[in-house]
Amino acid sequence: MGKEITPRNQDYSQWYNDLVIKAGLADYSAVRGCMVIKPYGFAIWEKMQRVLDDKFKETGHSNAYFPLFIPKSFFSKEAAHIEGFAKECAVVTHYRLKQDPDGKGLIVDPEAKLEEELIVRPTSETIIWNSYKNWIKSYRDLPLLINQWANVVRWEMRTRLFLRTAEFLWQEGHTAHATQEEAVEEARKMLEVYADFAENWMGVPVIKGVKTLNERFAGAIDTYCIESLMQDGKALQTGTSHFLGQNFAKAFDVTFSNKENKLEHVWATSWGVSTRLVGALIMAHSDDDGLVLPPKLAPIQVVIVPIFKKPEQLALITEKALFIKNELIKKGISVKYDDDEKQSPGWKFAEYEMKGVPLRIAIGPRDIESGTVEMARRDTKEKATFSITDIANKAEHLLSQIQENIYQKALDFRDENISIADSYDEFKKLLDEKAGFISAHWDGTTETELKIKEETKATIRCIPLNNPQENGTCIYSGKPSKERVLFARAY
Amino acid sequence: MGKEITPRNQDYSQWYNDLVIKAGLADYSAVRGCMVIKPYGFAIWEKMQRVLDDKFKETGHSNAYFPLFIPKSFFSKEAAHIEGFAKECAVVTHYRLKQDPDGKGLIVDPEAKLEEELIVRPTSETIIWNSYKNWIKSYRDLPLLINQWANVVRWEMRTRLFLRTAEFLWQEGHTAHATQEEAVEEARKMLEVYADFAENWMGVPVIKGVKTLNERFAGAIDTYCIESLMQDGKALQTGTSHFLGQNFAKAFDVTFSNKENKLEHVWATSWGVSTRLVGALIMAHSDDDGLVLPPKLAPIQVVIVPIFKKPEQLALITEKALFIKNELIKKGISVKYDDDEKQSPGWKFAEYEMKGVPLRIAIGPRDIESGTVEMARRDTKEKATFSITDIANKAEHLLSQIQENIYQKALDFRDENISIADSYDEFKKLLDEKAGFISAHWDGTTETELKIKEETKATIRCIPLNNPQENGTCIYSGKPSKERVLFARAY
Repeated sequence: MGKEITPRNQDYSQWYNDLVIKAGLADYSAVRGCMVIKPYGFAIWEKMQRVLDDKFKETGHSNAYFPLFIPKSFFSKEAAHIEGFAKECAVVTHYRLKQDPDGKGLIVDPEAKLEEELIVRPTSETIIWNSYKNWIKSYRDLPLLINQWANVVRWEMRTRLFLRTAEFLWQEGHTAHATQEEAVEEARKMLEVYADFAENWMGVPVIKGVKTLNERFAGAIDTYCIESLMQDGKALQTGTSHFLGQNFAKAFDVTFSNKENKLEHVWATSWGVSTRLVGALIMAHSDDDGLVLPPKLAPIQVVIVPIFKKPEQLALITEKALFIKNELIKKGISVKYDDDEKQSPGWKFAEYEMKGVPLRIAIGPRDIESGTVEMARRDTKEKATFSITDIANKAEHLLSQIQENIYQKALDFRDENISIADSYDEFKKLLDEKAGFISAHWDGTTETELKIKEETKATIRCIPLNNPQENGTCIYSGKPSKERVLFARAY
Repeated sequence: MGKEITPRNQDYSQWYNDLVIKAGLADYSAVRGCMVIKPYGFAIWEKMQRVLDDKFKETGHSNAYFPLFIPKSFFSKEAAHIEGFAKECAVVTHYRLKQDPDGKGLIVDPEAKLEEELIVRPTSETIIWNSYKNWIKSYRDLPLLINQWANVVRWEMRTRLFLRTAEFLWQEGHTAHATQEEAVEEARKMLEVYADFAENWMGVPVIKGVKTLNERFAGAIDTYCIESLMQDGKALQTGTSHFLGQNFAKAFDVTFSNKENKLEHVWATSWGVSTRLVGALIMAHSDDDGLVLPPKLAPIQVVIVPIFKKPEQLALITEKALFIKNELIKKGISVKYDDDEKQSPGWKFAEYEMKGVPLRIAIGPRDIESGTVEMARRDTKEKATFSITDIANKAEHLLSQIQENIYQKALDFRDENISIADSYDEFKKLLDEKAGFISAHWDGTTETELKIKEETKATIRCIPLNNPQENGTCIYSGKPSKERVLFARAY
């Protein structure tokens, strides 16, 4: 059938790429590092967007849209931001093409050079705070709670479908507040929104934490993050929320007059998740037969496949299938009835396994006689025969069991893969033999962090929120430490 | 109050700009020709997107996402397309910035020059058909019905908020078909979707037609369009749908094996509407006091304003207002209760007039005694007192009347402003004294079309669909003509 994918234990990385391509989620493009998100992959992203967008609005945010281009000079305004973002980026230098007078086709018109180069946004703090300067005058204008859904470009050298691409889609929230407390509260609130989404919609358990100085967003005072674990034992940063202090307000001179009519600089946050979430979703749950999707984000939740030999059988099966489809739709379940006669039931079973459809209903001639159907779960591969009575409630119940099971399985795996290391040797051994998160003492210096990274490729994923305080010694330097932090090799 | 806007009869163009800025729809940005869409303006666009997206899906289309960048060479592949799009565009030539060794700040790293320049997409036919080449092999893969919501960039010299900006947001449908008939049917079907949306959601009457050779999309065989009339008598192209023939299939070598197993080139369409629709919506209905929004696309459909002097009055009013708000929400109506004590009722009345909220409910102490409220329509400014009994049905009824009235008013205006000219003198006089659409005979040549454009700035907006055939003579050349076409000065 040409749909086989490389098994995970043979080559995890190849398994992932095979899956993305063969399940029709995405494709490579003619542009280096840029992917095409195909309809099935985009349908997952759309479902994610809808849920997240509703959550952002429930928490008081509005959407807006800011320019794709940022003047080069803007990046110089916030010192840390330059280092982080004004490096590998797409630079627009000209605004016109023309026919080569020597007949060599289209060339860049040298006369159409921009006075100041424009950078395709890698993130929008600078262009947005340049607008906020005009919008914020008084405490009455605060808080300003804005989100934008946009494409961004970071000229990554090594790319990977969904996980790291030169162009990707994301949302970026940018908020402005009158006080530090309110801004910190906002940054933490949005971290909770992300964590809730990851766990209860994606079925991906996360550890909430704060980044070290070295791993912080360029321009942030604190970067909060959610970290999750993939099946190969590597960590994936799933979302970040930054408390930016007054850094951008000072860089762009954004002040407000407070209730006492005194001018103060504004406090800021920014937070974002991207199409990387689709990659996390794929990696967290899928198996060697294809995708496993959580029902809450599956574009097709139930597929109905007819099994028949004679056309008159199909007519009876179709009647029953359409009845079931209609009952499920009434429950808000998305259903596909696949009566395409060009493909066999076996081909369809494999196809919908590959595509991760959570629940498959098969109806054959015997089911017509007995008033039953066969339902098969994608996650456990369990099959059972059910009476058609009350079928919509049964399907709904199974979908909710699948959602729960997927999460529990990922949670068990994650918890089994948090290890404790009390020496550097133990740490390195665990990394190589088991991977996963490693909880270890660290002396708190960037120097040690970078040495460990250089020697082992492991980074500090986060300092968990509400981390227990415990005296110990740094596994690398032997210096005193007050808490353990979570290391891992990461995507 | 600082919210006055220039009256239309004084300076229509300034009226429009004032309105966009003061109603908080959009703002200028630091990047030449690029606008910021502010939350209130974006909320209108989001409503438009939701309705259109549902219509696209109902007609069988799926969303996907293709790269922002297009390799320069792709534009050379379809001959007509080069002329139309490979001119004023944003060209990415480098992929890195660095610190100037002479300390002059950030500069473009000359060593990071791209081998082939990338163009920020002005439209995506080329990059999409380059993918379709890999996706389409057999008639079983057809039709391919894909849409994308995206930002595009055209380096316009004269820009105007929403109507013409260097970067804008749009959707672009790109479909592939096995036969010419099917592709033409698709292009016409999507024109009908656009026309239905413009008339029944935006309340903007449109004329459906086909463009002349000269006004056709670069690379199309036929460009279908909807044209609408603004209050200053200028026309605005509101949406286009193109039958592309086999032009792009041939340029990118996209073939399929038909049922007889013979290779054929694929037939194509593309179609799009953009944030320009927001500009059309503003211009079509608004007045000298601000926006007038059709209820079906208004972010806030009803605003409730309390009128009181003493705090104990406010408590009673709020109780009633929240009851009403809740009744309206049950009907799916979006309501805002504005009990902000920092602003007066008069300020609020003016503010929501400026923002075009279709229906305003005012509740004062006397209303509490009498069990009534005052409802005021934004479109006609009519006010009346209503008993609170059955208030949600009354509001719903008024909203539907407003929707209808706005459309009817625009339709009457449009119909009054279609004139017939039988000579060039009459034509020029009408253009200068009345404007609007002018129906006139034309000899069918691009030469005449361009002469008329040069001399009068009027263009042929379209040849209406189902245009009556009628022998006559061209107003410019005196040559024979078989039908009248619609001219206008246009945005």
